[in-house]
Amino acid sequence: MTQAVRHDSMRARNLGVVLGEVRRSGPVTRAALAEMTGLTKTTVSKMVADLLAAGMVTETGVPSRGERGRPGTAVALSGGRVAALGLEINVDYLSACVVDLTLEVRLRRAQAVDNRAASPVETLRHLRELAREAVDEVRSMGLVVAGSTLAVPGPVDDGLVHSAPNLGWRDVHVGELLDDLLAPSGPPFPPAIAAGTTTGAATTGATTGGTAAGDPAGPAGPAPVPLPTVDNEANLAALGELWFGSGHRDFLHVSGEIGIGAGLVVGGALFRGSHGLAGELGHVVVFPDGPPCRCGGRGCLEQYAGQEALLRAAGAGTVEELTGRLRDGDAAALTACERAGHALGLALTSAVHLFDPGTIVLGGVFAPLFPWISGAVRETTAARLAAIRDAVPDLAVSRLGGDAATLGAAGQVIHRIIADPVAHLAAT
Amino acid sequence: MTQAVRHDSMRARNLGVVLGEVRRSGPVTRAALAEMTGLTKTTVSKMVADLLAAGMVTETGVPSRGERGRPGTAVALSGGRVAALGLEINVDYLSACVVDLTLEVRLRRAQAVDNRAASPVETLRHLRELAREAVDEVRSMGLVVAGSTLAVPGPVDDGLVHSAPNLGWRDVHVGELLDDLLAPSGPPFPPAIAAGTTTGAATTGATTGGTAAGDPAGPAGPAPVPLPTVDNEANLAALGELWFGSGHRDFLHVSGEIGIGAGLVVGGALFRGSHGLAGELGHVVVFPDGPPCRCGGRGCLEQYAGQEALLRAAGAGTVEELTGRLRDGDAAALTACERAGHALGLALTSAVHLFDPGTIVLGGVFAPLFPWISGAVRETTAARLAAIRDAVPDLAVSRLGGDAATLGAAGQVIHRIIADPVAHLAAT
Repeated sequence: MTQAVRHDSMRARNLGVVLGEVRRSGPVTRAALAEMTGLTKTTVSKMVADLLAAGMVTETGVPSRGERGRPGTAVALSGGRVAALGLEINVDYLSACVVDLTLEVRLRRAQAVDNRAASPVETLRHLRELAREAVDEVRSMGLVVAGSTLAVPGPVDDGLVHSAPNLGWRDVHVGELLDDLLAPSGPPFPPAIAAGTTTGAATTGATTGGTAAGDPAGPAGPAPVPLPTVDNEANLAALGELWFGSGHRDFLHVSGEIGIGAGLVVGGALFRGSHGLAGELGHVVVFPDGPPCRCGGRGCLEQYAGQEALLRAAGAGTVEELTGRLRDGDAAALTACERAGHALGLALTSAVHLFDPGTIVLGGVFAPLFPWISGAVRETTAARLAAIRDAVPDLAVSRLGGDAATLGAAGQVIHRIIADPVAHLAAT
Repeated sequence: MTQAVRHDSMRARNLGVVLGEVRRSGPVTRAALAEMTGLTKTTVSKMVADLLAAGMVTETGVPSRGERGRPGTAVALSGGRVAALGLEINVDYLSACVVDLTLEVRLRRAQAVDNRAASPVETLRHLRELAREAVDEVRSMGLVVAGSTLAVPGPVDDGLVHSAPNLGWRDVHVGELLDDLLAPSGPPFPPAIAAGTTTGAATTGATTGGTAAGDPAGPAGPAPVPLPTVDNEANLAALGELWFGSGHRDFLHVSGEIGIGAGLVVGGALFRGSHGLAGELGHVVVFPDGPPCRCGGRGCLEQYAGQEALLRAAGAGTVEELTGRLRDGDAAALTACERAGHALGLALTSAVHLFDPGTIVLGGVFAPLFPWISGAVRETTAARLAAIRDAVPDLAVSRLGGDAATLGAAGQVIHRIIADPVAHLAAT
């Protein structure tokens, strides 16, 4: 028994090692994989056969670079079967994206909706519909959604959102609510890694092969929507920037929405703090005697550079209207951005002193506003940091903008599957 | 050759594993060590013999707890030979301590001196004398100082202090200066782990045994002072709190000196940021339009709660005078502490939002001032954090006060020796 358990856990570890090596080095031959991993060729061949059957890798005619002798058949990650669903609830929109195992984005959907006017259950019902449409749509591409992560605009602790003041949420147990909403509409799903099969036989060992041979877009009823894990929007946006952005591995990503969050990545790893609640840049104190904030404090950054504060100061109704006015040189709009940039610069000065980040990447609504906001940010941070720091961190604009969190959410599922393919195989 | 290298690195790793297990579990028998580490009894016995010869472990008659059968001879860390020197340069004092391998503090020395009035070289000369006295004094206890770390009040990058504005230092290469100061007075020292022998034969393989048999307090001239590695005071103070303090493993340690630094420990590990410059709490912006700071900014925390600002506001000359007045209920002193506490509370609010720490530990001059400063800190942080955070971090006082950095400096050397005893053995 102990022997069997050891064998199973060793197989699980080795399968993760092989798949990880395929991701880093693929396309790569089985012989090269054996050399890289220190496993026998027989073991590698068995693992590759399992991964092929699960649709996680594919065989290509291309030999691995630097391979000596006759070109063998190489193995690469397959973008054709396993996929992940990224979801986001924000104050004024819902969004979804589907990413395949090679991290290619296969679908994006966004829906403008004022979630403050809705109850958490109503918002989650909307989200369920969006998720269901996304899962159904990628099924026609042959993709099976194997798992999902949901980004919410507030700190999250094991599916529980203690407080998302901009949504009006307080102690909302998103995990439990989603469980109730999703469970009746299909077969039961294990948490995090959900059933990725179109038949009802989700728990039999033969299903992997069966699904591989079957038609994923077949007539077996609607595909199940996996139960998502829930995480903080700012953390997931930083991971989105890490995996889908400009390639930095040391940066502070600032998510400008109605709230302002930040995610710190050091050496390619997300810093989460002691309770997973780090990076609440929007509530850094900028002017201690300033206007009251929904968090209970006063003069928080959000009151000067959050989307609503900024639009109010500029007298604009939407970010599109604001950017239009800025392009036209509207004085009120320009002043509002300059003041927001100064406040953001003050909060970032404190953040640089505490976090010591690499580059600073401005995302969310700060991405379209970057041309008008970055000057004041740079001026304020340089004036306060240049004399004591050898280098003031570069300020860059996110190319992902508002999509960062949804992409990070889907990417997190893919990274978990690649790190632990056995958990995925067991579920399918 | 490759085989030999592999064998050496395996021996090095195993020696670290065995010594680490002795630290965690000692006193412990060789048989128990073999079981814990998965090494053969023969290998463990050889390693223990090497560690005994180096004076790093000692044999005791006490059997390991839970050991079955007849009590064997147990092995424990030895506090009798290997020691580490912790040093600190701060604005108004120099200090030194020596800690043995069991982390027992064997010597403490502090010297009040205004280092702003001195050049870096003069300050380092003072420090050299303090270090030499400490090394000589513990030699009479049979201790050999195997390495040293120096704490300085500013960010450090590979021995270079870019800017310690409170010391008036700018681009001071402490490592190189110390090299020049220490090198002529004894045999050459490898960096970080220095020669811990009283004979000149520092590089021969036989020295370990020779030193073990020799008299460390013998007549072979003055003991060499090892060349210290240089690190930031606030980081080392946090490590001092971790290893010598109240046993927390998740906390933000605040070092109140003339400058104010902080060190964040998450899960027992120090957070250093992307360039090792994290935790500069003293320059977090509290009142953006406040008085200019030596860092080039305005309204930094240091301008309200730094030792000089606090004494000036209270009209006191020294911290001792201030605490005396506070005990007497002096109104100006009480108001000064309350204002400093409010400013500290504002900066800590920002730090909690960004870092998400466990407990907050106030050290340095905030330790003796804790009874008069903590009320305002708690009030300010609670008012701004309680509505959005599930729990406001506890506020605690450091029992180490101003000794934290010097202790952390010495502890860092001990932890490095235990993690890599071969580097130490090679040097002795």
